[in-house]
Amino acid sequence: MPFRWDYKQHAALAWFVLKWLAICLPLGIVVGSSVAIFLWALHVVTLLQWDNSWLLYLLPLAGIASGLMYHYLGREAEAGNNLIMEQIHQPGGGVPLRMAPLVLIGTLITHLFGGSAGREGTAVQMGGSLAGVLGRLLKLTPDETRILLSAGVAAGFGAVFGTPLTGAIFAVEVIAIGKMSYKALIPCLLASVIGDQVNTAWGIGHTHYHIGFAAEISSSLSAVSLDWALTGKVAIAAIFFGLASVLFAELTHAISGTAKRFIAIPWLRPAVGGCVVIALVWLLGTRDYLGLGVTPHPPDSGMICIESCFQPGGADWMSWWWKLLFTAVTVGSGFKGGEVTPLFFIGAALGNVTGVMLGAPVDLMAGLGFVAVFAGATNTPLACTIMAIELFGPGNGELLSSGFVVYAAIACFLSYFLSGSSSIYQAQKRDEGKAESGKPKVEEEELSS
Amino acid sequence: MPFRWDYKQHAALAWFVLKWLAICLPLGIVVGSSVAIFLWALHVVTLLQWDNSWLLYLLPLAGIASGLMYHYLGREAEAGNNLIMEQIHQPGGGVPLRMAPLVLIGTLITHLFGGSAGREGTAVQMGGSLAGVLGRLLKLTPDETRILLSAGVAAGFGAVFGTPLTGAIFAVEVIAIGKMSYKALIPCLLASVIGDQVNTAWGIGHTHYHIGFAAEISSSLSAVSLDWALTGKVAIAAIFFGLASVLFAELTHAISGTAKRFIAIPWLRPAVGGCVVIALVWLLGTRDYLGLGVTPHPPDSGMICIESCFQPGGADWMSWWWKLLFTAVTVGSGFKGGEVTPLFFIGAALGNVTGVMLGAPVDLMAGLGFVAVFAGATNTPLACTIMAIELFGPGNGELLSSGFVVYAAIACFLSYFLSGSSSIYQAQKRDEGKAESGKPKVEEEELSS
Repeated sequence: MPFRWDYKQHAALAWFVLKWLAICLPLGIVVGSSVAIFLWALHVVTLLQWDNSWLLYLLPLAGIASGLMYHYLGREAEAGNNLIMEQIHQPGGGVPLRMAPLVLIGTLITHLFGGSAGREGTAVQMGGSLAGVLGRLLKLTPDETRILLSAGVAAGFGAVFGTPLTGAIFAVEVIAIGKMSYKALIPCLLASVIGDQVNTAWGIGHTHYHIGFAAEISSSLSAVSLDWALTGKVAIAAIFFGLASVLFAELTHAISGTAKRFIAIPWLRPAVGGCVVIALVWLLGTRDYLGLGVTPHPPDSGMICIESCFQPGGADWMSWWWKLLFTAVTVGSGFKGGEVTPLFFIGAALGNVTGVMLGAPVDLMAGLGFVAVFAGATNTPLACTIMAIELFGPGNGELLSSGFVVYAAIACFLSYFLSGSSSIYQAQKRDEGKAESGKPKVEEEELSS
Repeated sequence: MPFRWDYKQHAALAWFVLKWLAICLPLGIVVGSSVAIFLWALHVVTLLQWDNSWLLYLLPLAGIASGLMYHYLGREAEAGNNLIMEQIHQPGGGVPLRMAPLVLIGTLITHLFGGSAGREGTAVQMGGSLAGVLGRLLKLTPDETRILLSAGVAAGFGAVFGTPLTGAIFAVEVIAIGKMSYKALIPCLLASVIGDQVNTAWGIGHTHYHIGFAAEISSSLSAVSLDWALTGKVAIAAIFFGLASVLFAELTHAISGTAKRFIAIPWLRPAVGGCVVIALVWLLGTRDYLGLGVTPHPPDSGMICIESCFQPGGADWMSWWWKLLFTAVTVGSGFKGGEVTPLFFIGAALGNVTGVMLGAPVDLMAGLGFVAVFAGATNTPLACTIMAIELFGPGNGELLSSGFVVYAAIACFLSYFLSGSSSIYQAQKRDEGKAESGKPKVEEEELSS
């Protein structure tokens, strides 16, 4: 076989990269800026909600407003993340521009009035929607449109959490369960990095979580010696993380399905959901499970939130369940927002108590739960392992020396695997089971409202 | 839709995990121990070669010995890594036990007499071979055998470089270009972690590379601000890394093909290759490109090696090319060993001079070249990005704060992408091009000797 050097192929590949850089540059700038506006506005409405606790009592009315808005203006945008995934699988009607402002306003309504929801759904839908517009403007082919939509998702996700590589991997990994295609990898990385950096350039930062846990390093060489007892505890915790993710996904779907069955008028569903949230607040006597739940307000108030879960005693035994229930009711009844930040909360709280229960470092377990419940609920184990590195690694070299990468991989991979065919995204492709013996039934479910 | 909880599915998945834990435990112990023996022996023969430089003149004879050994005992084991990949694609005749001792002895011969080669091929083939035996002992089904072979590859790779997560991802990613299936993910992680830990327990460490580069951190929040000029330089360097990986893969294949065409007797081919290596040493007046080339001997000798490439002035302008040529001749003519450590060398040396040329931190660029040339030559961008984190991250939190994860991803993804349809593994599945416009021709090539 003679020496082979196919100049044309390399030129074509370089052209592909340059073309997508040219496309992803405006996409990243627009999506990163939109996410910056969103995160800023989210901060403002969260403060408003904290300072005006009576706003919670308007949650049912807010639900009606949000419901009416989507009922009259939403059309296909209602399907949200699932619509974007469907369009990536099989480009059809496209992702409408209206999705971006609708989900932005809808999410701000949810958080202003105290609903329990997240923000990644909003960022992903803004990214997908703006990508859809750009694709129509540029008259891209169906194949290019799929790539562009993935890049929009990557830009939104990367920017909203400040984790660019995670955003890129998430966008290609979330499309289908149990396999990954690299077709969109380069555009997703370009868009995600640009989106994140533009968001950062607008002065929007992200919460820094610190895991103090560090094993004693016995060797001067770079070999990492795992603590086998701790590894076992991580594996046991991963079972809980995986089951919590199933519980969340299935409960949200069940609440959504039940609401659709018993409440004929779509915009009344979130109103009922809002009433249930108010009832839960009364019943529990705490507002800790409202909103995003990232930081406490006021600081040092002893409020249970993601940050507190990294401290011993920072979560109650059932905190994870209450956040799960609050969010399943809020999102399942039709409020807009995302599920991922609540999944972080559920995971961190569950990790906190699992750590106490198993005698493992609470901050380590909170950090692992943070990413692993998300991995189970979205079937994105690689993105979540990388998220653990991008979120907890910077400034913390001792953590990586302690085998954290392996602990994160075990937690995320096992949680992903054990969650079976459950997913918060019903449009995820799932043509094979995770294991031959565990063949999930592929159910034809309605994907939109 | 009612609440759904499929207990049977979760039980089946848990059973899958436990079953594979039971299988991967002995596999990881045996492979990890074999790799420990191999690394120890490799260290011994490398010292012997350094202390007895005349051994180099026996390289042609050693080539004949190695060639005769494979000629009379090798049979299908000669195909090495490619045979393992073929058996993962389509279980057939299986991977023979003889592959493990043959590749171990063959690699030690190569290094004792000064051939330029690596060690991952040896570890991967020992892992695959021992997995093949275990699969036959346990009478596994063809589907289970594929998973087990992947796990064997993961265990070998994870143990030989001390990078367990990289080993697991590499094993699932290397099978096909441009896509990844998660079927074997859990068994691969189990085997790789156990293999690495067993190897570490035998007291075998790995070289620690330090990248001192750290950007100034401007924000107290966790946002990473990339240096755009540096990002551009990384992208430009990635083009060189990708092209170097193509040059290595194609030159090795061309030398192998030419040797087969003009030298009818198989065991004479490495003899001729050995003569060329000796001639190259005479011509260049340096022995720096012989052997593994990880550490200098004696320390502080000014010898060019992977460690020296992390220092300014630690590589000559053409060091990358000489290491590439030495290795292509050694491996292409039929000596046993691996290609990955030489790829690390080629990448680190190329990164060193690229850093000088572009005015970028030399240690950062050396580290990026280290993983990125490997990513291009093996088409495993995710494994290589994770390897950058597992190798350079521990103990170096500032590095991650400086956007290193993004730089590593850009370098590895671009190098992977631009390398097109080239690969050092001819048995990698490549049914689609990396980009629509760059459709590679799928060529039917002979895979074995």
